[in-house]
Amino acid sequence: MAGVQRISLSEALDLGPSWRHACHALLYAPDPGRLFGCIPLRYAVLMQMRFDGRLGFPGGFVDPQDGSLEAGLNRELLEELGEGAAAFSLGPGDYRSSHATASPPPRVVAHFYVKQLTLDQVLALEAGAHRAKDHGLEVLGLVRVPLYTLRDGVGGLPAFLENSFIGAARDQLMEALQGLGLLEPG
Amino acid sequence: MAGVQRISLSEALDLGPSWRHACHALLYAPDPGRLFGCIPLRYAVLMQMRFDGRLGFPGGFVDPQDGSLEAGLNRELLEELGEGAAAFSLGPGDYRSSHATASPPPRVVAHFYVKQLTLDQVLALEAGAHRAKDHGLEVLGLVRVPLYTLRDGVGGLPAFLENSFIGAARDQLMEALQGLGLLEPG
Ligand SMILES: Cc1cc2nc3c(=O)[nH]c(=O)nc-3n(C[C@H](O)[C@H](O)[C@H](O)COP(=O)(O)OP(=O)(O)OC[C@H]3O[C@@H](n4cnc5c(N)ncnc54)[C@H](O)[C@@H]3O)c2cc1C
Repeated sequence: MAGVQRISLSEALDLGPSWRHACHALLYAPDPGRLFGCIPLRYAVLMQMRFDGRLGFPGGFVDPQDGSLEAGLNRELLEELGEGAAAFSLGPGDYRSSHATASPPPRVVAHFYVKQLTLDQVLALEAGAHRAKDHGLEVLGLVRVPLYTLRDGVGGLPAFLENSFIGAARDQLMEALQGLGLLEPG
Repeated sequence: MAGVQRISLSEALDLGPSWRHACHALLYAPDPGRLFGCIPLRYAVLMQMRFDGRLGFPGGFVDPQDGSLEAGLNRELLEELGEGAAAFSLGPGDYRSSHATASPPPRVVAHFYVKQLTLDQVLALEAGAHRAKDHGLEVLGLVRVPLYTLRDGVGGLPAFLENSFIGAARDQLMEALQGLGLLEPG
């Protein structure tokens, strides 16, 4: 995507005060069952429909009073996902990448985290999301990512990737799925 | 969309046995609040992320044993949305349009319904959706449609319409929003 550039964490932390930092997380859990009783779903990977009509990961801007990137991320997860997010927290070990977007203003550097949860934790997030502070406002709904490709060769992940994504979210999704081996073999 | 043609209900009902009938519904409720405390959301309009990675309306194929189009629709709404859908039912008066898709096979005629609910009924659907039979399988998540346009002129409904939609869903959405006067004035 034009204007979005991958940078290292140390480069990101050296950016001046004109940059705002945001953190987002891919949360996933193994073995959510089979589609039509036969297609293994492999993993439940969570994304959300955002207020701007695009798909993205839960998270948001880190405030100066958060103290750390991860504290800001965990606060945002509680606001966007609700009480189910109190059952876990993300730390520096869950960090994966940073992307800088200089234009249009504001200048934003978005840090991306990935964490495996238990299936019960993901189900609890889905069950409680409607009670989150941001539900129906900044978050229009939680969705799972289809990791399979249907027989027509398009339905499933290929069609899902044709949707609108915010910032680096589509690249972050693809990198995480490949890096973690979450895609279908072959 | 190529291959999708709008037809009347009587034309649809005259199609032969090689056609399968499907019914989908746009469910909405007024006054869900304000975004950022200032942008009136006007209506909560429900769509869902489908198993194939595209956005669509809840509903599905009508079976011969359903007895009527609306009986099939109400059964599908229960399967996809869960127990909250037991609080209301759709009838012939909620019918709006039919679209026929001849290729690729199977030949499908999709009937579209629109029903206004109370905000409490929509909130109950969102609260119970994770317990629906099809949750995490045929339905990857329930989302609200942003009806506003953000200051950049793209975020909100324009960006939402750039997502992937199944069949006639995007046209059905636009027609319903215009016909019901759900869009922002001006
Ligand atoms: C009165 C008022 C009016 C507002 N009007 C608007 C408006 O018209 N338009 C608008 O967009 N906001 C508007 N805002 C929004 C506000 O400034 C925040 O952007 C919004 O609340 C989302 O904040 P967040 O921290 O959840 O951020 P997020 O949106 O989650 O993220 C923060 C930043 O990171 C970017 N980002 C998100 N995901 C990724 C990713 N995966 N990769 C890279 N970058 C990513 C976003 O574009 C954003 O710049 C308004 C706020 C107020 C109070």
